[in-house]
Amino acid sequence: MPVAKQRLEAVMRRTKVDAIIFWSLENIRYLCGFTGSDGVLIVSGQERTFLSDSRYEEQMQTEVRNATCKKYRQKIEGVTHFLKSFPVKRLGFESAAMSYESYQKLAEKNPRVSFIPLTEEIQGMRARKDPTELEKIQRAIRIATDSFADTSSRWLPGIRERAAAEFLECRMRRRGGEKPAFDTIVASGPRGALPHGKASDKRMQKRETVVVDFGVCFQGYHSDETKTLILGKPDAEQRRIYTTVRRAQEKALKAIRPGVSVRRIDAAAREVIARAGYEKLFGHGTGHGVGLAVHEEPSISPRGRGVVEEGMVFTVEPGIYIPGWGGVRLEDMVLVTGRGCKVLTHLSKNLKENIYP
Amino acid sequence: MPVAKQRLEAVMRRTKVDAIIFWSLENIRYLCGFTGSDGVLIVSGQERTFLSDSRYEEQMQTEVRNATCKKYRQKIEGVTHFLKSFPVKRLGFESAAMSYESYQKLAEKNPRVSFIPLTEEIQGMRARKDPTELEKIQRAIRIATDSFADTSSRWLPGIRERAAAEFLECRMRRRGGEKPAFDTIVASGPRGALPHGKASDKRMQKRETVVVDFGVCFQGYHSDETKTLILGKPDAEQRRIYTTVRRAQEKALKAIRPGVSVRRIDAAAREVIARAGYEKLFGHGTGHGVGLAVHEEPSISPRGRGVVEEGMVFTVEPGIYIPGWGGVRLEDMVLVTGRGCKVLTHLSKNLKENIYP
Repeated sequence: MPVAKQRLEAVMRRTKVDAIIFWSLENIRYLCGFTGSDGVLIVSGQERTFLSDSRYEEQMQTEVRNATCKKYRQKIEGVTHFLKSFPVKRLGFESAAMSYESYQKLAEKNPRVSFIPLTEEIQGMRARKDPTELEKIQRAIRIATDSFADTSSRWLPGIRERAAAEFLECRMRRRGGEKPAFDTIVASGPRGALPHGKASDKRMQKRETVVVDFGVCFQGYHSDETKTLILGKPDAEQRRIYTTVRRAQEKALKAIRPGVSVRRIDAAAREVIARAGYEKLFGHGTGHGVGLAVHEEPSISPRGRGVVEEGMVFTVEPGIYIPGWGGVRLEDMVLVTGRGCKVLTHLSKNLKENIYP
Repeated sequence: MPVAKQRLEAVMRRTKVDAIIFWSLENIRYLCGFTGSDGVLIVSGQERTFLSDSRYEEQMQTEVRNATCKKYRQKIEGVTHFLKSFPVKRLGFESAAMSYESYQKLAEKNPRVSFIPLTEEIQGMRARKDPTELEKIQRAIRIATDSFADTSSRWLPGIRERAAAEFLECRMRRRGGEKPAFDTIVASGPRGALPHGKASDKRMQKRETVVVDFGVCFQGYHSDETKTLILGKPDAEQRRIYTTVRRAQEKALKAIRPGVSVRRIDAAAREVIARAGYEKLFGHGTGHGVGLAVHEEPSISPRGRGVVEEGMVFTVEPGIYIPGWGGVRLEDMVLVTGRGCKVLTHLSKNLKENIYP
C-alpha cells in the first residue's frame, strides 16, 4: 500500500512523531492485513511491529505482512514492554479509536513518552481505494445485487418486514458474503420516516412505500445501497416525493469530480429537496465513504471538510422523511474517476422499476 | 431496573459526581431502552436525559423510558448545550467507552465541568441479570440450540467450514435470531489450534476435530456456545484431550456458587488441564459474562477480579490448542443460583454425543 506509506510518512513529519500506534481494527487490517479482533500496530519510519495475544498467535504469523509479529499476555503491558525497547519520544495515536481508559493507562505506564492525539491527520488515510480494494467492494456489491434479485417475489402486501430482511440476508450469506454490512433496514409505510428503521414484525401493506437499505461484507469490504419500493400504483404524493429524491440524487452525482468540495456535492442534492419544500425533512448527510468500515471518510455533508479525490468510494443517498407518512431514500455507491464518477451499484433507482409487485 | 438505579446512586455518592454521562450503546440500552446506533444518556440523582440526532427522532420517542428525550444536530455540541442548562460540576464518564477524542472535545467545550473517568466503578453494572433479561438470553440460547440441531447432517468430510457456518447462521436468522452474536467459528483439523478460527474455505476431513463456536442475538441479548465435533471414531489423543477439557469444564462448573472468586473458578479448570500436561496450551480465560454484549463482566480468568454473585450469567469454556494438530474447546453458559449454578445451554458436551456422522 504505497500511498498509505507515503501518507503516513508525511503525517509523521508534520506532527513530528517518532511513531504511530494504531488501535482501530480497520486501520490495522489496512496497514498489515491482520483480520482478527484484537491487536496493536506500531509504525515508525523504519519498522512496523504488530502485537497481539496468544489467541491470535498462529493467525498473525499467516496474515500479517510488512510487520514483525510479537505476542503479549496483556495489551497495555505488552505495548509498554515494547515501547521500552524502542527509542520513541513522541508517539502519535488514533484519538478517535483509542478509549480514554487505554490512553490513560498507556500514558501512566510510559511517562517518558509524549502521546500525541491524531485525528484529522490520519482520518482520510483509507479514503482513496486501490484496485485490489475496489475489486473487493465490487464483489460485495455484486453479491448484494444478485441477492436482491433473488428476493423479487417477496415484496408483497402481507409479508413481514423481518421475513423479507431475513431472506435477503440469507441469500447474501449463501452467495459468499461474510455477513450483513449492518442491520438490514426494511421500513414500510409510516416506518419509512425512521431513517434507521430496522426490519420489524410489521407486515407490508398495499400502496405503502418500503425503504430497503442493505449491504454485505466481502473480505472485509462493504457494500451499502438503498432502494425504495412502492407496493402498487404510486399516488401523486409518493410520485412527487420519489421523483424529488431521485432528482436530488442525480444532481449530486453530476456534481462529483475530483477537486469538488464535499459540501458542494451535499448542497447539490439538498437544494433540489429544499426547492420542492422538503428541506427540513432531509436530516442527514448526503453520503459517506465505504470500505473496510461501512462509514468512513469522506463525509458528504453540510459540515464535511475537504474535496473529493480520484479513487474515493462513497454513497450518495438523499432522502425525505415525513413523520406519520413514511419516507423515500435512494442510495448508490460511486467511485470518483478522473473526470467525474462511476456508479458502482447496479440496481435501478428509477421509479418505474421500483413498483411492486 | 431498580438494582441498576441503586448501584448508580451508590457510584455517584462514592465518586462524588453530580451526574454520569453514558456513551456505550449497551449501557444506554440497559438504562433507558434505546436500541439505535448513536446517542447519549445523562443520569443525575433527579433526572435522566437521552439525547440523539434527527435520524432517531421518532425511535427515541417510542423506545426510551424513564428519561426525557432531546434532539441535537451534532453530538458534542448537543451535549455541551445540555450541560450548560444543568448545574453539574463533576461529571462521571465511561472511560472505557468514550474515545480520547470525544473526551478531549467535551472537556474543551465545557471548561467548568470536571470530567471524572469511571471504570471499575460501573464495570459490573450489568453483570447480574433480572428475570426479563434472563428470559431473552434463554430465548437466544433456544434459537441457537434448535438451529444447531438443524445442521446435524452437515458435519461431514468434504463439506467446507464456511458452508456449514452459513447454513447454521441462516437457520438462526430464520428461527428469529436478529444476527449472529459474532463471526461463527468452524475450525477443523489443524485450524482448531486457532482459538478464533473463523469458518474458512477449508473442507472438513474424516477423523478431524471441528471446533464450532456460535451464538445469536435476540432482542439485544446474546448466546455463546462451543461444541467440538469429531468426524469419525476418535483416536487416543483426541479422546485424551477431549476428556481433559470436559473434566476441566466440569470442575469449573462445580466450583461456581455465590461468593466464590472468579480466579478460583478459572483455577479449577486450569488445574485439570495443567495436571494433564497441557498448561501452556490453554491461553485464554475460562469464561466471560454474556448479555447485551457478548463479552462483558464478570471475567473468569487468572487476572479477573471479585467474586461471582447470584444472577450472573457467564460462559465456562476451557480449551486446549496444539499448533499443527488442532484444538478442543467446550463452552456452556451458566446462571449463578443461590447455591451453585444452572447450565443454561442445552447441547451435549459429552464426547459420545459429539462423534459425527
